[in-house]
Amino acid sequence: MTTHARPAGPDDATGAPAGPAAAVTDGPDRVRHADTVELLGLVAQLEQVAFARLAADAAVAPSTDQRLQLTRFAAAAVARRDTVLARLTELGADPVAAIGQFDHVLDDFDARTQPSTWWERLLKAYVGYGVADDFCRLAAEGLDEESRRVVLAVLDDAAHAELAVAELDAAGSDDGVLSARLALWGRRLVGEALGVVQRLLVQRPGLVRLVEQREEPVAPAEQQAEGRPSPANPPTKLFGELTAQHTRRMSRLGLTA
Amino acid sequence: MTTHARPAGPDDATGAPAGPAAAVTDGPDRVRHADTVELLGLVAQLEQVAFARLAADAAVAPSTDQRLQLTRFAAAAVARRDTVLARLTELGADPVAAIGQFDHVLDDFDARTQPSTWWERLLKAYVGYGVADDFCRLAAEGLDEESRRVVLAVLDDAAHAELAVAELDAAGSDDGVLSARLALWGRRLVGEALGVVQRLLVQRPGLVRLVEQREEPVAPAEQQAEGRPSPANPPTKLFGELTAQHTRRMSRLGLTA
Repeated sequence: MTTHARPAGPDDATGAPAGPAAAVTDGPDRVRHADTVELLGLVAQLEQVAFARLAADAAVAPSTDQRLQLTRFAAAAVARRDTVLARLTELGADPVAAIGQFDHVLDDFDARTQPSTWWERLLKAYVGYGVADDFCRLAAEGLDEESRRVVLAVLDDAAHAELAVAELDAAGSDDGVLSARLALWGRRLVGEALGVVQRLLVQRPGLVRLVEQREEPVAPAEQQAEGRPSPANPPTKLFGELTAQHTRRMSRLGLTA
Repeated sequence: MTTHARPAGPDDATGAPAGPAAAVTDGPDRVRHADTVELLGLVAQLEQVAFARLAADAAVAPSTDQRLQLTRFAAAAVARRDTVLARLTELGADPVAAIGQFDHVLDDFDARTQPSTWWERLLKAYVGYGVADDFCRLAAEGLDEESRRVVLAVLDDAAHAELAVAELDAAGSDDGVLSARLALWGRRLVGEALGVVQRLLVQRPGLVRLVEQREEPVAPAEQQAEGRPSPANPPTKLFGELTAQHTRRMSRLGLTA
């Protein structure tokens, strides 16, 4: 059972010590704790997905050198995921349940964006998962200091992105047809990726709360109580920032967003 | 170009320093060096294959917990492979070429032994790749001390085997039908695995030399010169040992070899 799903019972009001999560007793703190567990679970799952994708990329890499590099990136994704899981344990949450609730978070995205070439595959990693990382980075601003530090450190490891940029830049710079195709592919990827974020915000009010905490002063406790409906307007500022990051990312490759 | 493929040129006789491999100048030492590079390349490739297999296992693992464990084992295989590649660099060899020459070493084996259940998959990892590891362990006895130490340390990491043993033992102990099926599957796996070893020995005289060095006192230099035909009888003692190890492995699971 995840801490998130824990019903508010009479035991919660006694303040009796019950393990590392015992400090979480009153309403707003419990909500904040559940929201933190939710975002950390999502970040851990994204690293898990990154592992699987990098392993699949390694299997079809054009050269032995690239295969060696990609398996190293895959191994690094496992280490990053485990850093996030360790933070979940520190917070008294069940890490397996926290990551498991997001098991299929990118299945739809992957099914809709099957790359047909090595370049499309590289661009998918760079652009598609880049949006997911940006979203987590923005939502992380609503976390406690230590959890935020863990998430930002995990998301800051851009070694794989550097490889993708170097290869895509070299390939596209003297091939106008390839550049035009990849620009089109990038637009499709970002559209699908923003769709994933939108669905997440609809299904996970906790993530909306985290994103909003960074945008405005912390609201009074009663407004943060569990069960508060998600706002009618999804945070348009968030989507503006995600799109701006995407445009920056594409222009690093010399591609039109 | 691999050091293995380096032709014996007049420069080799001068003894002039030419990088880390410069000490390798005379015939028998050069052969020994090439044989070492060959075995280290094979061991590195087996870890690479283990990574790919563990990543594939993780993708279909029945539980989140098993998935987390298997990805950790996959990451550990990358680290072990890189330890072997680092030793190749120390020896002045090209690690990418050394591992690349074995890119397809288990393709045939994998195509012939497609597991149809989770249990068959676990047993394949334990038995099939166990034979390959045993072979490398035996051949490693013909290596220089430091290379041998690296290979034995890499092959000694049995964490994944322990998981397979625990799960297979628990599953088979109260299920006679499953046990009988797995015993049959184990016999098929060991037959195919020994076939891989046999083909390797036919194609790679260097591996035969390493295996023989452990079986008899070091032969005079002229007998070890490159181009020496592989013996008419493949080392039957080797196959006896590999089979004995397999029997021990199966009996740990309570299965008949």
